[in-house]
Amino acid sequence: MEPKKTALVLVELQNEFLSEGGILNPLLKEVLDRNDVLNNLNRLIEGARAKGMLIVHSPIQFSPDYREMGTSPFGILQIVKDSNALVRGTWGADISPVISRHEDDIVIEGKSAIDAFSSTNLDFVLRSHGITTVALAGQLTNVCIESTMRSAYDRGYQVFGITDASATIGIKQFEDSVTNNWPMFSVPVTHAEFLAIGNNCGGRRDAKSAEAACCN
Amino acid sequence: MEPKKTALVLVELQNEFLSEGGILNPLLKEVLDRNDVLNNLNRLIEGARAKGMLIVHSPIQFSPDYREMGTSPFGILQIVKDSNALVRGTWGADISPVISRHEDDIVIEGKSAIDAFSSTNLDFVLRSHGITTVALAGQLTNVCIESTMRSAYDRGYQVFGITDASATIGIKQFEDSVTNNWPMFSVPVTHAEFLAIGNNCGGRRDAKSAEAACCN
Amino acid sequence: MEPKKTALVLVELQNEFLSEGGILNPLLKEVLDRNDVLNNLNRLIEGARAKGMLIVHSPIQFSPDYREMGTSPFGILQIVKDSNALVRGTWGADISPVISRHEDDIVIEGKSAIDAFSSTNLDFVLRSHGITTVALAGQLTNVCIESTMRSAYDRGYQVFGITDASATIGIKQFEDSVTNNWPMFSVPVTHAEFLAIGNNCGGRRDAKSAEAACCN
Amino acid sequence: MEPKKTALVLVELQNEFLSEGGILNPLLKEVLDRNDVLNNLNRLIEGARAKGMLIVHSPIQFSPDYREMGTSPFGILQIVKDSNALVRGTWGADISPVISRHEDDIVIEGKSAIDAFSSTNLDFVLRSHGITTVALAGQLTNVCIESTMRSAYDRGYQVFGITDASATIGIKQFEDSVTNNWPMFSVPVTHAEFLAIGNNCGGRRDAKSAEAACCN
Repeated sequence: MEPKKTALVLVELQNEFLSEGGILNPLLKEVLDRNDVLNNLNRLIEGARAKGMLIVHSPIQFSPDYREMGTSPFGILQIVKDSNALVRGTWGADISPVISRHEDDIVIEGKSAIDAFSSTNLDFVLRSHGITTVALAGQLTNVCIESTMRSAYDRGYQVFGITDASATIGIKQFEDSVTNNWPMFSVPVTHAEFLAIGNNCGGRRDAKSAEAACCN
Repeated sequence: MEPKKTALVLVELQNEFLSEGGILNPLLKEVLDRNDVLNNLNRLIEGARAKGMLIVHSPIQFSPDYREMGTSPFGILQIVKDSNALVRGTWGADISPVISRHEDDIVIEGKSAIDAFSSTNLDFVLRSHGITTVALAGQLTNVCIESTMRSAYDRGYQVFGITDASATIGIKQFEDSVTNNWPMFSVPVTHAEFLAIGNNCGGRRDAKSAEAACCN
Repeated sequence: MEPKKTALVLVELQNEFLSEGGILNPLLKEVLDRNDVLNNLNRLIEGARAKGMLIVHSPIQFSPDYREMGTSPFGILQIVKDSNALVRGTWGADISPVISRHEDDIVIEGKSAIDAFSSTNLDFVLRSHGITTVALAGQLTNVCIESTMRSAYDRGYQVFGITDASATIGIKQFEDSVTNNWPMFSVPVTHAEFLAIGNNCGGRRDAKSAEAACCN
Repeated sequence: MEPKKTALVLVELQNEFLSEGGILNPLLKEVLDRNDVLNNLNRLIEGARAKGMLIVHSPIQFSPDYREMGTSPFGILQIVKDSNALVRGTWGADISPVISRHEDDIVIEGKSAIDAFSSTNLDFVLRSHGITTVALAGQLTNVCIESTMRSAYDRGYQVFGITDASATIGIKQFEDSVTNNWPMFSVPVTHAEFLAIGNNCGGRRDAKSAEAACCN
């Protein structure tokens, strides 16, 4: 893994999810607290930035009447609409001020789908910057993160999932996604493991380990 | 739901998964047997065909050396490669003869990714046929079916997941996917519920039920 | 053609192109004036709105340092960057006030590529609204309009190109695109022909004419 | 330009276009002969192969009844259907035997759209092989080549168009596409210029020239 070819893609680090007063924040509290997600996110972001990785934010937002969803949304988008969350231009849709930001970070516009690639220029931006590896962190572990992970995998990226910098609604949902599904489409690692990759690459190769991924 | 605008998308109903002697068949046996998947698939296919729905097969296959995967596959594709399964032109890659076929069925070429949309002309074929609703059945419940479901959802289709016409490796993996994830991206129904949709639509509306979906 | 299933997709009706003082406006003057494009655009938009078609704007915009383009843009994007045009939040990037707007119009966020589908949620929005036919108008005839037309065609839409509501840099470029290329990927019509479709559909069918398209 | 990161993408080098007896061959004769396209294609392929570039074929083909096109094709696909050309499993759909082949070449399955990316796994295959630059050659200059070029550009690839290894129907169509449109989405070069890139890169930089592209 070469830092210059690696992007940290941060999915929906918005007030609605991460900040007190955010509409969806209470639902995530359990996992956010148990996993110390906010601190891990900042350690991850600052560590990746220090290594020269590209930092990319992918916030999700909608019109006040959610007109992008058409006339009869169903499933997870209906729940978003019913909650009145994530409206463009509101505080809830802003990236949370607790998150470490830098003027060189890239903010991807236009995410209104579950997969961060499917309605944005994320793929173009990554290829234009020579990115071949993506590391994913943020929300929700089993929804937008997992859809983005599956999509990154089908697009041919090397993919890392940062286990302790992600949250969702319920410990069981978190564990099921990270344990059952993430390993099919990524190399799941903690933020510390991810940042340590390459530090002691002595040529070992073991396709099952994160250390091996670094040595490719 | 209008049958003329509905496609039944059948993912990977190939010997490798469904037929005795298929390389991956032993891994699916438990769920295939418990859920009577083969019989349900044929009831579903014949019922959908009788209603005038479009029947679409999406088999997956690879070159003998899996060159499509590049030099260092990881995750689920590496497992496929290591198993020597699903090679183009072999018996294992053929659609299983136990499956009900008709000359009007469409077979989508070129699937070599997890999401049936991402490397094929599936989306074009569906729109060219005026399809706005897709029902998904086949394998693997939590892998290709779920990735295709997530992608169909992000593409704006009305989506049904047919719970008793799908299999994967292990009851727990099956249940986790169908119970936790499918409802976010589809209306999960049995094949019988799916085929009954519209039969007694008396104008009731209940966003949670399959009957409601039919009445839209 | 059913108005309820038809969207008028308006590409880049922004000050930079259409308004005096726009950076790229002088380059388009010749075609804008010759074809009376501004008046035709408004006749088209108001006629389509009156028929109940979906009105969709797709403006293009970039960060002040054009970071989305990566480190070494080339071709048409390099020209955009060198011109300092279309920066998010500036007057030039706003939709021109001469254009007829309505609160029900949809504005697609995030276009930073040539094809209006490739970096946005346009496809999702169209399918979610039940759209199967798109009519394209705006700029540039042979660049973003033609790329969007080619993409709409490959996505299986019925496509109309509105010849007299589109402009580009130079009459020859305009004519080459509309005459040679548009007919391969759309039914090219004037705004008046487009709005008259369906008005006197007496069952005639002639695959070469716009009237035929209406009668399908 | 690094050969190991460069793919030569060969679009539709099939009997139907290139071989005597091919249904569409008479239409291409004029440009094929004037530009010595067949010989240039083989010089290009063998030169690229010698440098270690990835060679990728992207043939187009359809079912005998063209069912992929839906019920009412229009534009260029209707012309293909009416011509009875490019049917899967027929001689016309085979890659022409005059073309230099090697067992390491990759053949992309499933192209049934104009843009070679839009209905295939081409993007996945390229990223999985670490490809960041694509060179395009084949048919038709202003149709499939230009659509693929526009799409490659919007996906963030460095793009070369090989001018003298491409053909279409009519000299004017060829010239209009190569002269007006290709430079917006690629660096147009002859096969000899393309193969010479990097041979004498003395550090010069001139964003307008092919030599400059090599030095990036």
